[in-house]
Amino acid sequence: MRRLKILGIEYNLPQKTEIFGDQTRYRISGQETQMSLAVGAIKKVFASTNLSISDIDLIISCCAVPYQLIPNMSSLVYEQFDDFRGIPCIDINTTCTSYISALDIVSYFLDANRYNKVLIIASDVPSKALDNLSKETYELFSDCAVATIVEATNEDKGVIYSLQKTFPKGAHDTEILGGAAGLTVHELCDENRRKYFFRMNGINAIKLILQELPAVYKEMCNNCNDIDYVVPHQASRILDIVMKRSNIKKPYINIVKNYGNMVSASIPFALKKALDERKIISGENVLLMGTAAGLIINGLVLKL
Amino acid sequence: MRRLKILGIEYNLPQKTEIFGDQTRYRISGQETQMSLAVGAIKKVFASTNLSISDIDLIISCCAVPYQLIPNMSSLVYEQFDDFRGIPCIDINTTCTSYISALDIVSYFLDANRYNKVLIIASDVPSKALDNLSKETYELFSDCAVATIVEATNEDKGVIYSLQKTFPKGAHDTEILGGAAGLTVHELCDENRRKYFFRMNGINAIKLILQELPAVYKEMCNNCNDIDYVVPHQASRILDIVMKRSNIKKPYINIVKNYGNMVSASIPFALKKALDERKIISGENVLLMGTAAGLIINGLVLKL
Repeated sequence: MRRLKILGIEYNLPQKTEIFGDQTRYRISGQETQMSLAVGAIKKVFASTNLSISDIDLIISCCAVPYQLIPNMSSLVYEQFDDFRGIPCIDINTTCTSYISALDIVSYFLDANRYNKVLIIASDVPSKALDNLSKETYELFSDCAVATIVEATNEDKGVIYSLQKTFPKGAHDTEILGGAAGLTVHELCDENRRKYFFRMNGINAIKLILQELPAVYKEMCNNCNDIDYVVPHQASRILDIVMKRSNIKKPYINIVKNYGNMVSASIPFALKKALDERKIISGENVLLMGTAAGLIINGLVLKL
Repeated sequence: MRRLKILGIEYNLPQKTEIFGDQTRYRISGQETQMSLAVGAIKKVFASTNLSISDIDLIISCCAVPYQLIPNMSSLVYEQFDDFRGIPCIDINTTCTSYISALDIVSYFLDANRYNKVLIIASDVPSKALDNLSKETYELFSDCAVATIVEATNEDKGVIYSLQKTFPKGAHDTEILGGAAGLTVHELCDENRRKYFFRMNGINAIKLILQELPAVYKEMCNNCNDIDYVVPHQASRILDIVMKRSNIKKPYINIVKNYGNMVSASIPFALKKALDERKIISGENVLLMGTAAGLIINGLVLKL
């Protein structure tokens, strides 16, 4: 086990909701931005843990899409706080499962005593990249930021097991084609505008997930069979079907109806909800698990 | 020491050069893209090491700006090869020093025997984001991709020491403001077009670097005084002045004149050149060091 302890998790939701049938989604409006959501979540976790920026040794940002292309998101987040000690800032990206990759990497840092307290900020505002002509995606996503502080510990808590697999056959089932170095912003025109929005081929994505996830989940269980609870990425409205078809019979949280898919913020948000509702408690083993663009399947068992 | 061994490093330069006075720069043209550069570099490193994609356990992309915003760059790179084992794909970003952060993180993975052989791909095509009205930046950057394969080892080789610091006072001295989730592509108009290019306030950037780098370098030396050679990020034409004013008296490589600043590819490219020219040899300690947008200062001592 790579030891680490969660000191606090806090989220920051946009004020505005949009309702699609029985589904509630959160969307930034007015002066709200990805950055304001992130800073608000961090201030909340500082308040709840009685810590401040001066206690932090490392800042990890794990969003899927950052606020700017340069510098990295973690440096821009750090800029919002008055601290001049030079805290290292690293971005880690496995899109929707970036929080799992961040915890995984941080567990090595903390277990080796490289750092003591790490701030992990997951923030995404997918509403900024949604195509309102695509009902399937437009009605699925929410904006959110979740801040977590983890600490090195001698207690019997930490990462027991982690596994990531990538199946690039699905690389174009969920994507934003334009806007970065491939199809640049300067090539945008009326004819190709939709290529700069998030696009999903939901049927292909689900087919590939159902083809690959059962075996990956089985491999996780074979390597770590002591799982009390599952916190899945809240990827879609058919989460229950995906869990059933993947033979995932452990109890799990499903809050898609009330919150939607929050991209990188989904997993820490759902973890926080499960903790608040005491669905999992200290000493138990939780499997954080998700599928992400790529297609990435990512899982990590955390002893709380 | 976190043990690891470099099995091979290979670069892939664009065919076209542009000459600005005595300075040579490389720019993609025709069918060349960031992805074609990356794939070419990877094929070269497979050839030089007699390895193939089926030997790789983990793919890390460490570019500053990826090919697409979603999925992550490493998954898109993996898609270009015929392999269906599900190699995990992670992106790590500290802009121009991302290669240092990647090696740093990978050293924990390898030292713990999590993975055996890791492919690290650094690729950037800054020419796609340059403003031809800004001579200072337009004449500085080159496009390039560099692929590295590192391996777990029992030999006396690996990461001896690493240190990163971020000084966000300089967050806006080097940036691309538009194109991601802050100022989105969909807000682009004729009036704000220049915000979607790379912008540099060179004087402010240099001031802050000269203010912070000497102390960070001194801290590195205090913790690891056995450095044979320095491979600095080829940040600008005044590299010699920055090295001198930062009291860095070790021998180092300066290839800015012939190659320019290659963003994330600069450090591995310069390392490869230094190895090829036998400026550093097996058993010696090389300090990879650089400044990056953020302002990030990053250093890592590698025993070769």
